[in-house]
Amino acid sequence: MHLGGAKRAGVMSATEVATLLKSEFPQVFQDGSGISIEDAWHGGCRVRRAFSDKSLRPGGTISGPTMMGLTDFAMYVAILASIGPVPLAVTTNLNINFLRKPAPADLIAEARLVKLGKRLAVGEVSIRSDGEEDLVAHATSTYSIPPRTS
Amino acid sequence: MHLGGAKRAGVMSATEVATLLKSEFPQVFQDGSGISIEDAWHGGCRVRRAFSDKSLRPGGTISGPTMMGLTDFAMYVAILASIGPVPLAVTTNLNINFLRKPAPADLIAEARLVKLGKRLAVGEVSIRSDGEEDLVAHATSTYSIPPRTS
Amino acid sequence: MHLGGAKRAGVMSATEVATLLKSEFPQVFQDGSGISIEDAWHGGCRVRRAFSDKSLRPGGTISGPTMMGLTDFAMYVAILASIGPVPLAVTTNLNINFLRKPAPADLIAEARLVKLGKRLAVGEVSIRSDGEEDLVAHATSTYSIPPRTS
Amino acid sequence: MHLGGAKRAGVMSATEVATLLKSEFPQVFQDGSGISIEDAWHGGCRVRRAFSDKSLRPGGTISGPTMMGLTDFAMYVAILASIGPVPLAVTTNLNINFLRKPAPADLIAEARLVKLGKRLAVGEVSIRSDGEEDLVAHATSTYSIPPRTS
Repeated sequence: MHLGGAKRAGVMSATEVATLLKSEFPQVFQDGSGISIEDAWHGGCRVRRAFSDKSLRPGGTISGPTMMGLTDFAMYVAILASIGPVPLAVTTNLNINFLRKPAPADLIAEARLVKLGKRLAVGEVSIRSDGEEDLVAHATSTYSIPPRTS
Repeated sequence: MHLGGAKRAGVMSATEVATLLKSEFPQVFQDGSGISIEDAWHGGCRVRRAFSDKSLRPGGTISGPTMMGLTDFAMYVAILASIGPVPLAVTTNLNINFLRKPAPADLIAEARLVKLGKRLAVGEVSIRSDGEEDLVAHATSTYSIPPRTS
Repeated sequence: MHLGGAKRAGVMSATEVATLLKSEFPQVFQDGSGISIEDAWHGGCRVRRAFSDKSLRPGGTISGPTMMGLTDFAMYVAILASIGPVPLAVTTNLNINFLRKPAPADLIAEARLVKLGKRLAVGEVSIRSDGEEDLVAHATSTYSIPPRTS
Repeated sequence: MHLGGAKRAGVMSATEVATLLKSEFPQVFQDGSGISIEDAWHGGCRVRRAFSDKSLRPGGTISGPTMMGLTDFAMYVAILASIGPVPLAVTTNLNINFLRKPAPADLIAEARLVKLGKRLAVGEVSIRSDGEEDLVAHATSTYSIPPRTS
């Protein structure tokens, strides 16, 4: 399987993933949560977090936990889009480098899976302030995928 | 400087750190936020996050971002206790391994700095469910410390 | 299972692990390789790397890859001591922070497993220059353990 | 500064970096070391490690420390190409995920800096077996850059 190159459709679309998450994870994803799935494909996705004063730190910067939560969310969306519903997939590792102070703007996170195995999915996530080229954070993360019964 | 061995008093006590944080970071630390600083010493601290249904994921587990936020908070408290007020210290890296499903109980995070330099502080954080021996998560993190004017 | 507290004997002793590794991994562990296993117990071990001019970098410091290799070795020894021969266990993640310039002396690495599951083992490794208290490096690492047939 | 998009020339070419490293780091880079710099540009590089039986593990796989050393080397080349000679730049963090068993072939590592600040450079490194698309390892790393006197 090749995860690079041109995007191809996942087994679930952005809309289908959103519907599943609203049903399964209403705590973290629902209308009004400020998070939206802009696109999803086999091996990746792009998600947006609306700017909110609540996630600000002194100095006007967006908090680290906000970006860590967004990373985790983007990874999960990329996995769902690639292999379909696996509600019990769990994060086993997340490593994030905070690179620049974010602008007071929406955050855009783009996830790209670099491994999609039977037991583990590994990906990297790039986070930018909307409209900017430079990254504000870069993360890698591993999810453990439970055995699937067919 | 030796960061291991017997605990010795930090330059700020747990109470002094709490007072500073309520003043500087009311978004993340205030009465009712569910987070408390149990102890703080030179090179480390122990903090508690009260159990809350809000941070639950399907299956009854506490969310990863909750534990990442707690890690980040514990690191910051350990730094403040060790070197005093540095409000603009910022996280540059956080790496976390999620090890076990947490119990539906308070989380206890213990931070231990392994380096406390002029520009960088590096530490590890162990997270347990209250009353348990096994770790539910283990993290390492780096903070960048701004130049201090004396 | 509790991995903290007092050391208890592993299923393989330091000598038994050394004998296994000389047989299975002569490329990395043999008489004259400069690496020795000082102690091994359930959930951890202590290994030593003799100082060698060959691993020096300009400025007289020991190279990063030398410390990464030592981390990987210590993790593997801790796993073998804890669960017995699993020659096909493989590293899936290694995260290392380099903290101080090492002295021109032997390196001592101490590994401590924080999770020992059926599929994954996670541990942390502290590296010191012989005789020093402060860490020169601190790492965490995950090994994938293949299914064992009984 | 924008590190993405089209490649642009670095302040040092691949040949100039190689000449510097042969002079400064003969322990790790010299004719016969098996490592070569294929290309280098502002913000990145591509390096090759010739296949060698010496770095094999049981089962015919290339060792983790070999890939960690290659990651570290690629990061350093990318930094030199981008900002010129900084012999005392040192690695402060390296996080690597091992994704697949490498083929018995040359390894190709491509580094891409995601931050190039005055004090810190952060990058990601993708490692493939020559001729393959899938990654065998993916790493992120941080270098500390000493103050430069002009």
